[in-house]
Amino acid sequence: MTKKILKTIQSYLRKNEMGPLHDFLKTLRPGDISEAMKGLDEDERKTVFGLLGVESASGLFHEVDIPLISRILQDWDNARLAKILDITAPDDGADVLGVLLHKKREKVLRSMDKKKAKEVQNLLAYDEKTAGGIMTTDFVTLSQDLKVRETLEYIRKNVNVETVHHLYIIDREECLVGVLPLRRLIAVSPEREDITLKDIMTSNVIATNVNTDQEEIAKLVAQHNLLALPVVDEEGRMVGRITVDDVIDVVQQEANEDFYKMAGALWEAGYLDKTLFTKTRMRLPWLLACLLGGVITGSIVMFFKEAISQVIILASFIPVIMAVGGSVGLQSSTIVIRGIATGHVDIHAIQKFLFKEISVGLVLGLICGLGIGIAAWFWPEGSPALGLVVGIAMFTALTVATTFGALFPALFKRLNVDPAVAAGPFITTVIDVAAIAIYLGLATMLLHFLV
Amino acid sequence: MTKKILKTIQSYLRKNEMGPLHDFLKTLRPGDISEAMKGLDEDERKTVFGLLGVESASGLFHEVDIPLISRILQDWDNARLAKILDITAPDDGADVLGVLLHKKREKVLRSMDKKKAKEVQNLLAYDEKTAGGIMTTDFVTLSQDLKVRETLEYIRKNVNVETVHHLYIIDREECLVGVLPLRRLIAVSPEREDITLKDIMTSNVIATNVNTDQEEIAKLVAQHNLLALPVVDEEGRMVGRITVDDVIDVVQQEANEDFYKMAGALWEAGYLDKTLFTKTRMRLPWLLACLLGGVITGSIVMFFKEAISQVIILASFIPVIMAVGGSVGLQSSTIVIRGIATGHVDIHAIQKFLFKEISVGLVLGLICGLGIGIAAWFWPEGSPALGLVVGIAMFTALTVATTFGALFPALFKRLNVDPAVAAGPFITTVIDVAAIAIYLGLATMLLHFLV
Repeated sequence: MTKKILKTIQSYLRKNEMGPLHDFLKTLRPGDISEAMKGLDEDERKTVFGLLGVESASGLFHEVDIPLISRILQDWDNARLAKILDITAPDDGADVLGVLLHKKREKVLRSMDKKKAKEVQNLLAYDEKTAGGIMTTDFVTLSQDLKVRETLEYIRKNVNVETVHHLYIIDREECLVGVLPLRRLIAVSPEREDITLKDIMTSNVIATNVNTDQEEIAKLVAQHNLLALPVVDEEGRMVGRITVDDVIDVVQQEANEDFYKMAGALWEAGYLDKTLFTKTRMRLPWLLACLLGGVITGSIVMFFKEAISQVIILASFIPVIMAVGGSVGLQSSTIVIRGIATGHVDIHAIQKFLFKEISVGLVLGLICGLGIGIAAWFWPEGSPALGLVVGIAMFTALTVATTFGALFPALFKRLNVDPAVAAGPFITTVIDVAAIAIYLGLATMLLHFLV
Repeated sequence: MTKKILKTIQSYLRKNEMGPLHDFLKTLRPGDISEAMKGLDEDERKTVFGLLGVESASGLFHEVDIPLISRILQDWDNARLAKILDITAPDDGADVLGVLLHKKREKVLRSMDKKKAKEVQNLLAYDEKTAGGIMTTDFVTLSQDLKVRETLEYIRKNVNVETVHHLYIIDREECLVGVLPLRRLIAVSPEREDITLKDIMTSNVIATNVNTDQEEIAKLVAQHNLLALPVVDEEGRMVGRITVDDVIDVVQQEANEDFYKMAGALWEAGYLDKTLFTKTRMRLPWLLACLLGGVITGSIVMFFKEAISQVIILASFIPVIMAVGGSVGLQSSTIVIRGIATGHVDIHAIQKFLFKEISVGLVLGLICGLGIGIAAWFWPEGSPALGLVVGIAMFTALTVATTFGALFPALFKRLNVDPAVAAGPFITTVIDVAAIAIYLGLATMLLHFLV
């Protein structure tokens, strides 16, 4: 369906039929427009965004990956942007203002409704990866002493039931003491409408502090299957709420981030739309680290050049030992990094996990060592001695690789270094150096059996 | 907090204080018990599960990663398991029965409430990675001609508002024609209660077919920020609903799966709790593929042994070219694989993306080639000619690596092969072979400048 929508939009754009396109966009849901945006190029996106009414544009802000349209927003008319933001949820508004340059942001804020501008500005002050950064400030708090009847009247007059799912119940000190799903009010029959909210609220509220990291929040929401999570300040007063759709975004973003880091690239949202310069800047650091690692491994090879010069065939097993050793190391570090991220590996009780991982390494090493050993034996110019050297080297390399691959991310995590970052060039280099040193060292020791 | 709960449970277990542990467990939320389960070992989990009341156990099934307790369930008393499943949501029940061996499953089903057993059995028939596999069958459908007054009466008598968020509205043919968030009924003032559901329902329903893949569903729910997604059969009749908490699980599971695949391991939920044999089976295939790739790369090295035997120093740059080439390839394939998974890369319009990726490869190749070229020049026994050979080889290798790294996953996707699987040993081997062949081929051509 999404594909069809994209094609239709592109066909209107190609024929330059702006009127019909405008009408077509009106029939779409914000989510559909947001999805189509991904498939358009920068100019097309700009045209489409310009054709949206204030309300559709506001709806789009709720759905679209904001960095995708950041350059368009930067060039947009301040007054019009302010008008859209006036009717946009504060958290989405903060995301939009967050991608603008400082000067532009100030101008837009000045054109906005005073109250809304204040709300959005408050949200901008929080670190974007904490509860404060992803929460929204539109929520409804009511006193615990209010009667159900009064509550129903209040809601019918003042609350938009389409966007509010829960009422948050506070005491006289404005501290959060309970939560009440709106739909629970339906179950109260008219003759019982004199009971107070205190009697029907859930008082054991799961809430989070405004400074909690977003990854923790995603775990909390997933763990308890929450639809919304209230956010409180140090005094226990409610300051915002986080909705489950934002949590889905967090889960996806955190996974993407880990993917990029493990592949050895700095994380920035929207790699695909960056300039060549930024892309290079995101990818180069890891490569230079790898380059350094490769040079170190190369000097190990040079250290053993005597053995290679006498038995050239030794050089031909360097690739296989590096490839398999690197693979095993990547497996181990991925397993431990994902385990830590999902809470399945407890870094404070890592010994048991490590022990099991090393056992797996021993078995894998045995199988691969045996395989490559036999291959080396029957290799052109091969020999049983060569088979022994290559096989033992492979076995040791794989055991070392599983151990280091599992150990380092856990160590880094305990030192508060992101394990996904550390897993890259560092572990690979350590494994390469160890594997090649073992291999060529062994070959040097047994050299007179090889020549 | 979770950490403290785990510690408390373990301390009771150590002191064998089952009474107090039982009381403590009663005070916990299902999500807390589920989280603590991850940190316990098999025997401890068994004890804790045994201490749970029927209701807590049922609540736990909703939260816990079922494979984590599959062995415990397999050994559990049939009658007691049936009793728990009788009060468990059908989709969670299907997950539990899904991990049992066939014979055991039949026995438990026979002990269950007839109607519930039937519901769960129906769910078990669906592929577990489709809408049918993750949906639940408890939902409320009402006729579009029902009045709001009648609806409210019906709900107060028959519906548990704690678990139902939406009413699904059907026509006379039982086709899904609308959805009504329960809370919207609150906004209807008492004097307007004679209007029908048709007048207040949302008629433009987003629904999915029972056979839709779970990854598509996650995209749909994220795209439109849905809390629940109705599932219909081919005739448009409602057969189930998918809740957002299950979608969070899907997003996490799909990300985990991709992590495992890209790290070169077969995916099975719960790697950490598998036996040594299963772990080996999950990890070995990739390693053997890598081993084969390494042997092929090694034979390329052998093919050029003449050059190496004359200039031993050539061998010492094999590691760096492999390491950096492999890294760049991994970056490119991760970017395209994640881009496809998140919908940011359109495989039917891959040319533009490829072109940009190759530009990045050229720039990265230029920088790294220059760097290693200078290093090789000033390397012990190095020379300007060596620097030229190594630099050009690095430059070409990186360009090839970005091209292949980006191209292959897209090709595989179009051939309907999972790109994350394909990315592993295949791409690495192709890049290694190409890089080493270019390097040593060039060296052979320029050999008389090197000696």
